[in-house]
Amino acid sequence: MSGEGVSVAEQFKAAFREHPAGIALITATTPEGPVGLTASSVASVGLDPVALTFSVTRATGSAGALLSADTFLVHLLDARQLAVAEQFAVSGGERFTEAQGWETLPTGEPHLPGVRAALRCRAIQVTPVGASSAVIAEVLDVIEGDSGEALIYIDRAFRVLP
Amino acid sequence: MSGEGVSVAEQFKAAFREHPAGIALITATTPEGPVGLTASSVASVGLDPVALTFSVTRATGSAGALLSADTFLVHLLDARQLAVAEQFAVSGGERFTEAQGWETLPTGEPHLPGVRAALRCRAIQVTPVGASSAVIAEVLDVIEGDSGEALIYIDRAFRVLP
Repeated sequence: MSGEGVSVAEQFKAAFREHPAGIALITATTPEGPVGLTASSVASVGLDPVALTFSVTRATGSAGALLSADTFLVHLLDARQLAVAEQFAVSGGERFTEAQGWETLPTGEPHLPGVRAALRCRAIQVTPVGASSAVIAEVLDVIEGDSGEALIYIDRAFRVLP
Repeated sequence: MSGEGVSVAEQFKAAFREHPAGIALITATTPEGPVGLTASSVASVGLDPVALTFSVTRATGSAGALLSADTFLVHLLDARQLAVAEQFAVSGGERFTEAQGWETLPTGEPHLPGVRAALRCRAIQVTPVGASSAVIAEVLDVIEGDSGEALIYIDRAFRVLP
């Protein structure tokens, strides 16, 4: 079923590039300071316990630091956070700047005010899968905000769903 | 951080309802016949091994049967499959009808021709999380098709991203 000379990995990558996804910004405080990364893989697992999943590639320093933190904050982004999403999605982008408006929660995690929802989580299972890790996390608290237009990640770009 | 009288579970459910997602139709052949369910939680994990994740609630018979199958087929849907997505997303909807155009792969899985991509998978880890299961699956083969307009699941409805 594979095309000539095209690996399953290449076909899979091309297929998922066009699979639309919401975007989250996951942050944590580490001994080296705040870390954050965007994830298009955040999904709900269930309500009892309240749990979600996501995957990260351990190739980036941010992911390793994030996975070593006791708790982290999953911000569900919308169109109002398009600029921040772009800044965190690229290597060397602006992160945790004053202009972005970060606060620190009483529990220690970096929090971006104004997002629709921020979910404070603790990992309950981290499974290495090659160079990536698949994470199952329990949701401890939800910080609710107002809704904005949906932000979609597709074809390696951000789109707004009006 | 929780509102008065509103549980973390209720806040989480409301937050994820507005988190946009692509939609997949996962099928398998079981001793009782073909089973299929829609999933908004399918996400790529990595390329080596080629792997993806998704979650299902075991409350439905389809999910239990699917998880007991040796292999299954993850169809990444687009706007051309809107009707089929709706039929599989509701309890008692039309499934595996002649009008939907199902075929059976030489390897045995029910295949919906005309989708952008169908990924033949084998579960490598199934983790019970309350009444749900979080699945990590290796991708064995990819059947590629043409692209259509993106289909988004948000706020318990399907939307097309032109």
